Amino acid sequence: MSDRISLDDLNGRDRAGFIAALGDIFEHTPWVAEGAYARRPFATVAALHEAMMGVVRARTEAEQATFVAVHPDLAGKAARAGAMTAASVSEQAGLGLDRLSEEEYGRFEALNTAYRERFGFPFVICVRRQTRDAILDAFERRLAHERAEELAAALAEIGHITRLRLVERVDGPGAPEVVGRLSTHVLDTHKGGPAAGVGIDLYEVGASGRALLRQATTNEDGRTDAPLIAGAPLRIGTYELVFQMGAYFAARGLDLPERPFLDAVPIRFGIAEPEGHYHVPLAVTPWSYSTYRGS
Amino acid sequence: MSDRISLDDLNGRDRAGFIAALGDIFEHTPWVAEGAYARRPFATVAALHEAMMGVVRARTEAEQATFVAVHPDLAGKAARAGAMTAASVSEQAGLGLDRLSEEEYGRFEALNTAYRERFGFPFVICVRRQTRDAILDAFERRLAHERAEELAAALAEIGHITRLRLVERVDGPGAPEVVGRLSTHVLDTHKGGPAAGVGIDLYEVGASGRALLRQATTNEDGRTDAPLIAGAPLRIGTYELVFQMGAYFAARGLDLPERPFLDAVPIRFGIAEPEGHYHVPLAVTPWSYSTYRGS
Amino acid sequence: MSDRISLDDLNGRDRAGFIAALGDIFEHTPWVAEGAYARRPFATVAALHEAMMGVVRARTEAEQATFVAVHPDLAGKAARAGAMTAASVSEQAGLGLDRLSEEEYGRFEALNTAYRERFGFPFVICVRRQTRDAILDAFERRLAHERAEELAAALAEIGHITRLRLVERVDGPGAPEVVGRLSTHVLDTHKGGPAAGVGIDLYEVGASGRALLRQATTNEDGRTDAPLIAGAPLRIGTYELVFQMGAYFAARGLDLPERPFLDAVPIRFGIAEPEGHYHVPLAVTPWSYSTYRGS
Amino acid sequence: MSDRISLDDLNGRDRAGFIAALGDIFEHTPWVAEGAYARRPFATVAALHEAMMGVVRARTEAEQATFVAVHPDLAGKAARAGAMTAASVSEQAGLGLDRLSEEEYGRFEALNTAYRERFGFPFVICVRRQTRDAILDAFERRLAHERAEELAAALAEIGHITRLRLVERVDGPGAPEVVGRLSTHVLDTHKGGPAAGVGIDLYEVGASGRALLRQATTNEDGRTDAPLIAGAPLRIGTYELVFQMGAYFAARGLDLPERPFLDAVPIRFGIAEPEGHYHVPLAVTPWSYSTYRGS
Repeated sequence: MSDRISLDDLNGRDRAGFIAALGDIFEHTPWVAEGAYARRPFATVAALHEAMMGVVRARTEAEQATFVAVHPDLAGKAARAGAMTAASVSEQAGLGLDRLSEEEYGRFEALNTAYRERFGFPFVICVRRQTRDAILDAFERRLAHERAEELAAALAEIGHITRLRLVERVDGPGAPEVVGRLSTHVLDTHKGGPAAGVGIDLYEVGASGRALLRQATTNEDGRTDAPLIAGAPLRIGTYELVFQMGAYFAARGLDLPERPFLDAVPIRFGIAEPEGHYHVPLAVTPWSYSTYRGS
Repeated sequence: MSDRISLDDLNGRDRAGFIAALGDIFEHTPWVAEGAYARRPFATVAALHEAMMGVVRARTEAEQATFVAVHPDLAGKAARAGAMTAASVSEQAGLGLDRLSEEEYGRFEALNTAYRERFGFPFVICVRRQTRDAILDAFERRLAHERAEELAAALAEIGHITRLRLVERVDGPGAPEVVGRLSTHVLDTHKGGPAAGVGIDLYEVGASGRALLRQATTNEDGRTDAPLIAGAPLRIGTYELVFQMGAYFAARGLDLPERPFLDAVPIRFGIAEPEGHYHVPLAVTPWSYSTYRGS
Repeated sequence: MSDRISLDDLNGRDRAGFIAALGDIFEHTPWVAEGAYARRPFATVAALHEAMMGVVRARTEAEQATFVAVHPDLAGKAARAGAMTAASVSEQAGLGLDRLSEEEYGRFEALNTAYRERFGFPFVICVRRQTRDAILDAFERRLAHERAEELAAALAEIGHITRLRLVERVDGPGAPEVVGRLSTHVLDTHKGGPAAGVGIDLYEVGASGRALLRQATTNEDGRTDAPLIAGAPLRIGTYELVFQMGAYFAARGLDLPERPFLDAVPIRFGIAEPEGHYHVPLAVTPWSYSTYRGS
Repeated sequence: MSDRISLDDLNGRDRAGFIAALGDIFEHTPWVAEGAYARRPFATVAALHEAMMGVVRARTEAEQATFVAVHPDLAGKAARAGAMTAASVSEQAGLGLDRLSEEEYGRFEALNTAYRERFGFPFVICVRRQTRDAILDAFERRLAHERAEELAAALAEIGHITRLRLVERVDGPGAPEVVGRLSTHVLDTHKGGPAAGVGIDLYEVGASGRALLRQATTNEDGRTDAPLIAGAPLRIGTYELVFQMGAYFAARGLDLPERPFLDAVPIRFGIAEPEGHYHVPLAVTPWSYSTYRGS
């Protein structure tokens, strides 16, 4: 992010320079940056973002709907036709929405069509905060909204999208929180200390299967050297941590059955707050365990 | 089991009648019943079985090996050729060993051959106490045995097989324990009482996939109306209970995230003692849970 | 209870016989039995009690207040002067209210006086459902009531008192629940089985100290041979179970520090439902434990 | 500790300066510093201490016993007569050994006499690592030692005493670990987050009663702003944390019984490692809790 603009620099720019810097944060909509220009200076990056959102919120419902309508479909024809902004291309690709099977593409297409027919604008969601499964869930849930409720939902998502873009563009104090963290800790309550050397697999669990996201091994403190996920929003979705406790207890030399009571211990959990800290510890013996959402 | 013979009746029979009743308990080996006849009367069914095993143990190692050798291969040619005793046919069918794919049949055939070459007698295991995965594990583990160790293992399995057969044949006091039990209990520690109406799925988890064994719903006491497994030996293997806690807490009307932290809660565990009582309870809130092997 | 009257007998009695049998269930108030007589026959003991309470509830508020006013003070002058019914004497003695120190007697006297001045009738509470501490708490809490609220509270307590008396007097189907139960279970999650031989002390914990109520030792199933409390209402109050885990783990021969992390493990809990089942289990290793209210 | 000597300074000193700086670290025994002088320079403070202990260990058993014999009795006549070194006076006073009742003084006196008669030297223990109860326990346990075993125990204690003194005297890299830490964390698993505002009392629990050591309240993260104990060795002993969960859950506005199931939640635990980190968390709902030794 070495090429970020400093907030000080932004605060000192003239109108043209300001818009040049921020005009594309809101998809195809430079009037947001224009409107925000009048509210300079900004003490924090969060205040700058809030001001830009305020410009949108001050518009009429019809204008807001028009504004939403400039966004591309998810996994839609714009993507295939190369008509999206670079930011949108990158965001959708991060979730593999540019590599769907024909069947998946068909499902998105049907949902996009139903949604456009119902609301008159495309379905907008901050894909960087979602798993693919969560997007499909949200799509179906939001299709049942009333129009005003859904317009608010769409603007909230645009808030998430642009907050992320702004933090990557502007360097300064008071940046809004845009990253989450997933961590774990394995405590061996049979011996009364951290469990070192435990293999851990992290999966994303979707409706159609599971995908291995990460493998790690606990250190002397029973933790992983780095958080399991960090530095980005957590994607809303369902996950499973699998702790290889059978191998760990066998390595401790305990006298356990050939087929141990606990071997691979799965903990399945949902993430609902992309900017949250999810600490999912395991306190475990060969015969018992407990977990909770910590922070 | 209305046609079982009473232990009193057996104790009063003459030699021919005694052998007629018990001669086929030990596969193709009426001399076991003959030998046991001399030790009448038996105070308990367990003592009768112990006497029969004592007849086998009193033989030389060579005689024991010959005795083991009359048993059929698992999932082997005898099964295909219809040359097994009715009891063996039924026992192997219970595990689906009569319905293997060609690939699975091939794997068993290779193991059978390797085993016979190494020990000179067929691999014997009490299939009613095993999942298919556990049999394959035991096969590979026992192939590494020394001969004397393996002969003892084979006799121990014959003890399990014949104990089950004897309990089904003879009615009387002091029957040996041949059945296990798997039960659960869901306690809602958010409200401080049993969790009623929780859907539970029980799976067998094998190397090549998982199979749904049973579905149940908790009653007002947080238990299932009947144990999840009862009335037979538990099959050595790996299992998973999946508790539908998301639906349960939603039905309680709690204010939880759209994507709840806990939804389907899996507990995966191994069963090593077919005649044991495995009580696997879940104490759970929307944000935490614990389990242990109870009894 | 061999001299109880059967419900059938009661249903068949004439007016005089019915009143002779039940006239003293409600303190100094035979008209309750008289009123209930008209509602015969009763299918259950619970229905009989409900009918008697219905007679009281049908009276005017002034009549109800007069009815409440015939009850003796708690730990009051009537007790000292020998002017209470035998049932009241026995009930108050069960809680030691006949053996108060001068200071305690003084505190009750002051509360009795304040209460009578406020409401015009004495403080009534079912002492068999209370610890002494709980009575003092209830006294102070109820002094803050409005009169109608407090009259209802007094009648509810008279319901509890007479329900207990009736169950002891009348034998028949559908007896109302008047007993509670406290039980425990110690599970050693270090070894994966019940903890046998664990010493357990049960204390009542009051504002002015603690009293040992019961000592027990766990059996092979990790339970006590009999419930810790049963056969009577649980007394509302605060309790502490102390589990002697240090001695238990030492006896198992585990290699633990001279000063073990867990030695005497206290679990302090309140009982609020005298007719409830309180199961307070302990799942424990030398380094961890958990408990919950079970049932 | 602004007047500490730097390790560099010490390494550069001549014999007299070195002994002047360290001669009193070992009670009345300047030859330890003399012996260590020959082993300069020291890369770490730990190496310096190890060298000094090596000087002691290189002596004969008789010389070591004579060395131990110069130490003062605990709570003994020397203390009363003002004949101890300033360091010993301060160390014993920290545990209140200068303010014993006549009865307690008598018990120490009897143990001191029995010990001296058995071993020929006084009982030495690093009082800064002990509660008074733990000292009495150690006294009785060590009285049962063989002489060689006990001499080793006494030297180990002198190692603890002088390690603490040295760390306070000398500033430099590689200081040995002489401090422990006790911390806690309260997690509300009913709401799925840290429990803020929970009152916590920390007691020392002795044979003759309990003493309140510290009160704290949890912050927004469910932790106390500072560890409950830090900056010094933990004293070997028994402790109790009492968490005021009743007030906390009431403040959350939960609908709980007048007499809640959990109100003051005690966790009693032993500390055996004065330089250890004891993290004793509480995961709790109104109806359940769990704890463990964390780190």
